[in-house]
Amino acid sequence: MLRTHNCGELKSSDINKMVTLAGWVQKKRDKGFIIWVDIRDRYGITQLIFDEKRSTKKLYDKAKNLSREDVVQVSGKVIERESKNIDIQTGRVELLVEKLNILNKSEIPPFTIEDNTDGGEELRMEYRYLDIRRAEIRENLIFRHDVTMKVRNYLSKKGFIDIETPYLIKSTPEGARDFIVPSRMNQGEFYALPQSPQTFKQLLMVGGIDRYFQIVKCFRDEDLRADRQPEFTQIDCEMSFVNQDDVLNEFEGLISHLLLKLKNIKLNNFPRMTYDEAMKNYGSDKPDIRFEMKFGDLTSISKGKGFNVFDSEESIIGFSIKNGNSISRKDIDGWTNWVKQPQIGAKGLVWVRYNDNKTLKSSVDKFYSHDELIDWVKITHAEPGDLIFILSGDYKKTLKQLGDLRLAIAEKLSLRDPNIFAPLWVTDFPLLEWDNELKRFHAMHHPFTSPKEEDIELLKTAPEKVKANAYDLVLNGNEIGGGSIRIHNSNLQKQIFNLLGFTDKEARKQFGFLMGAFKYGAPPHGGIAFGLDRLVAILGGKETIRDFIAFPKNNSGRDVMIDSPSSIIKPQLDELGLSIVKK
Amino acid sequence: MLRTHNCGELKSSDINKMVTLAGWVQKKRDKGFIIWVDIRDRYGITQLIFDEKRSTKKLYDKAKNLSREDVVQVSGKVIERESKNIDIQTGRVELLVEKLNILNKSEIPPFTIEDNTDGGEELRMEYRYLDIRRAEIRENLIFRHDVTMKVRNYLSKKGFIDIETPYLIKSTPEGARDFIVPSRMNQGEFYALPQSPQTFKQLLMVGGIDRYFQIVKCFRDEDLRADRQPEFTQIDCEMSFVNQDDVLNEFEGLISHLLLKLKNIKLNNFPRMTYDEAMKNYGSDKPDIRFEMKFGDLTSISKGKGFNVFDSEESIIGFSIKNGNSISRKDIDGWTNWVKQPQIGAKGLVWVRYNDNKTLKSSVDKFYSHDELIDWVKITHAEPGDLIFILSGDYKKTLKQLGDLRLAIAEKLSLRDPNIFAPLWVTDFPLLEWDNELKRFHAMHHPFTSPKEEDIELLKTAPEKVKANAYDLVLNGNEIGGGSIRIHNSNLQKQIFNLLGFTDKEARKQFGFLMGAFKYGAPPHGGIAFGLDRLVAILGGKETIRDFIAFPKNNSGRDVMIDSPSSIIKPQLDELGLSIVKK
Repeated sequence: MLRTHNCGELKSSDINKMVTLAGWVQKKRDKGFIIWVDIRDRYGITQLIFDEKRSTKKLYDKAKNLSREDVVQVSGKVIERESKNIDIQTGRVELLVEKLNILNKSEIPPFTIEDNTDGGEELRMEYRYLDIRRAEIRENLIFRHDVTMKVRNYLSKKGFIDIETPYLIKSTPEGARDFIVPSRMNQGEFYALPQSPQTFKQLLMVGGIDRYFQIVKCFRDEDLRADRQPEFTQIDCEMSFVNQDDVLNEFEGLISHLLLKLKNIKLNNFPRMTYDEAMKNYGSDKPDIRFEMKFGDLTSISKGKGFNVFDSEESIIGFSIKNGNSISRKDIDGWTNWVKQPQIGAKGLVWVRYNDNKTLKSSVDKFYSHDELIDWVKITHAEPGDLIFILSGDYKKTLKQLGDLRLAIAEKLSLRDPNIFAPLWVTDFPLLEWDNELKRFHAMHHPFTSPKEEDIELLKTAPEKVKANAYDLVLNGNEIGGGSIRIHNSNLQKQIFNLLGFTDKEARKQFGFLMGAFKYGAPPHGGIAFGLDRLVAILGGKETIRDFIAFPKNNSGRDVMIDSPSSIIKPQLDELGLSIVKK
Repeated sequence: MLRTHNCGELKSSDINKMVTLAGWVQKKRDKGFIIWVDIRDRYGITQLIFDEKRSTKKLYDKAKNLSREDVVQVSGKVIERESKNIDIQTGRVELLVEKLNILNKSEIPPFTIEDNTDGGEELRMEYRYLDIRRAEIRENLIFRHDVTMKVRNYLSKKGFIDIETPYLIKSTPEGARDFIVPSRMNQGEFYALPQSPQTFKQLLMVGGIDRYFQIVKCFRDEDLRADRQPEFTQIDCEMSFVNQDDVLNEFEGLISHLLLKLKNIKLNNFPRMTYDEAMKNYGSDKPDIRFEMKFGDLTSISKGKGFNVFDSEESIIGFSIKNGNSISRKDIDGWTNWVKQPQIGAKGLVWVRYNDNKTLKSSVDKFYSHDELIDWVKITHAEPGDLIFILSGDYKKTLKQLGDLRLAIAEKLSLRDPNIFAPLWVTDFPLLEWDNELKRFHAMHHPFTSPKEEDIELLKTAPEKVKANAYDLVLNGNEIGGGSIRIHNSNLQKQIFNLLGFTDKEARKQFGFLMGAFKYGAPPHGGIAFGLDRLVAILGGKETIRDFIAFPKNNSGRDVMIDSPSSIIKPQLDELGLSIVKK
């Protein structure tokens, strides 16, 4: 090793020891007759001292010429520091350097390697290797490592086997868009990169593996919304001989374990809520339940009172904001404009102030009596000092709009405390979703999800009403995991494929291997997959997954550091039997 | 859970307990009035009993109709078995079934799910999910899991951070052929799948991560030799502020740990040998040193004795086979034919028998005296009872041929004991390899490998003589890992790219980000990567990596189970702006 110690470990008990350190020049303070240099590595910062009296002239001059991010190796004696910094481990000592070896000079970096860097997002992405030197990003990556190690050891102890599934698989046009990989040995044919190891983990269950997990990269060629990546990482799990409760209980254990070990937080319970309840109460299938603001349906009691806006609409729904009465009239107008923006699309916002003295003031005082408004108060669980917001319109749209409003207000009022962790299972998702454009059903989860036993008959008569054995784990309003009990019967699987518009031939071509496998003794099985990038970010108390990925891509799917994707040379295309279509 | 216990855990102390099991029907023995059924899961086998007296007729008839690989759930009472099988954990008890629930009927499987299956390789690949049910494959996969968990925990404890590097990277025509991935969002541009995370792990070192590891899939689009896979897994590691010895010592620790924990074998030492020594002594850069047969160079003492074959050749080299005198004349002729086969390409084989009574008999008695042959005996370290084999020809070719012969003989004589583990570091590889076809140098390891400090001057005058800080870890004649100390100086990196025939522009286009990174304080660093598939197979005492991969591809890079690669639909190609060139 080019060092005897790292830059984070020297302390008082090391005084008088001769040591060698290596690291980067963090900063230099030159007092004219004395030079202090902080050197940094992953483990910490140690102060070096050079002075005109104790250092040779040659050494002193060499130190004088050091600049930020130079890589140095220094040897010398550990001495007590005059002005101590008790905030850091190494703050009581410094190194009186006797030998300075410049291992690599650095040019002036394009931004400062500091907690509060002067580098903008784009510049830091281009020089990601420098951004990683900053404590924040480095600690994020180490935290991610901690999370994955804890996940692996927990699952392994619970009998889950880590099995690698292939990356070069088969393209299936169902669902999101695949990245494809041309085959050279089989020209005109293509592999696809997996969107998830779904079918393979099911085959492992057919193969009797009983419990499987994998932390695995997955790929989706989608137009990227903010904070999505074309390649992302899943904690992928599957179990045999289980029902839905077994899966939920098992993975409550995992998430509780992570929170306890990583954040010292003991989670007492994982509430469960059906999809219908979640939509009805929070206007979202991933409600953030760190705060209340549960919806109240005012439709039946608010129509026919002469307020035209409400009378003509399908639904009238509202919620109360705790202590919301302190929100000014100007801010209420702001929220009114907010709900009217095209991304939200409401026509207007009705409000009711429930004053501390129990009087009421609303934007619809003309149409509703005190007693009528008191009914609203009851249904929205408002208390004196609260403010009620109400939207009206098409049932589903109104729920969605109100759900968005609820989150935006909570964000504004700082109700989304990143140090509080509120998990929630959302269960009983609909099996199918009607696609109005394509005039056919989509699988809401995926085509391998089993319908509820009691709903199987409905598949023939009212498929849209069929509920699935599907569940999402929501943490602080983010879907961090989702899964289902799978179909293990080849006839039922065929029936679902048909409902999804597959001809028998298409189903056989794409999933024949799976339907074949189900004929040879497939066990009942189910599982779950967690989005690791998001999970780590939330556990780390942050919002942006990019900060927890070593080398992320930008919103155009581009790695600006290595400049990829990029053109390739013609012989490469020729070998694959492909040509680029001129536009 | 659909079971209270698994099929591998019931024992005498469970007698009289009411339990529920679930699993696959392994076999059924129907004695007319009593039926025994073995059911199997990942954990073991438990015997069920149905009999005419104690079972209802309905239950008994249901059991009668069970067939192999049906998935069942059974409840009943654990009872003592009359004829015990003490070889297995569950062999003292059986389950008197009271309730039998057939969870999924199975068709007759295409081959038997037994240790000695009747299924051929191809059939088992097509129905891999059934092959995985066999104990051998299942235990291989669990063993692989054990290996990776131990690797991760060991490295993590040693301060290595598991960091995921991207899979959608940039194509670099140097080295092996890339798999490419067309970009839809950037039409006409392509990602490539990584052949290794080499440049990214180096950037992590530039980023100050200090110690990195990852167990990661890598991809090479090569014509597949036997037992190679287009996607394979590496244990990829990198460290900063190290020299070659530090890396070697660190990873001796890892391999020793694995052998101790997995095989209870304590490795006492990891001999080190330079590439030149390995070639000279064993005709291979990955010698199997579980047995001796070290080469002796007979060139100087064997020429000019009238034996034309030798006189005209550059080199005469031989080795002795311990107790080889028992090899018959017929078998010697067999070996003579063996070395003459085109894949080996020797012209003939000279042999000397060193008899127990110290007399000598050789195929060249006409040309060499007893004393001359005794010199051969000394140089090849032969002892009475040994047989000496000698080849002659071009120096390098002869070494290679003799190396192949040495291995083939060891195989034949069962000297390659899979229960003995003999690691060996091969070091000081040449930096460059001359490519006679392209008339230019190739990097023997990769273009980022640092030359030996003392050889840097030779880069200008005699590049072919430059040795690299590169090393391979060989285990039982297999290269299980390889690495190097890397270049961390941008000028030296540029010089190497130039030597490898890159123009400055090409180097910048492909590796500009790396050379750029080296300008901002790159630390000295080095690392290693282990081939996990091979490592696991060798630790498992087997030769075939395919048996340790859940879903391997065949020699045409095809997954015959899912039938991939396959054609894709035209809209997918259109979206990518690609067309297939008609042949």
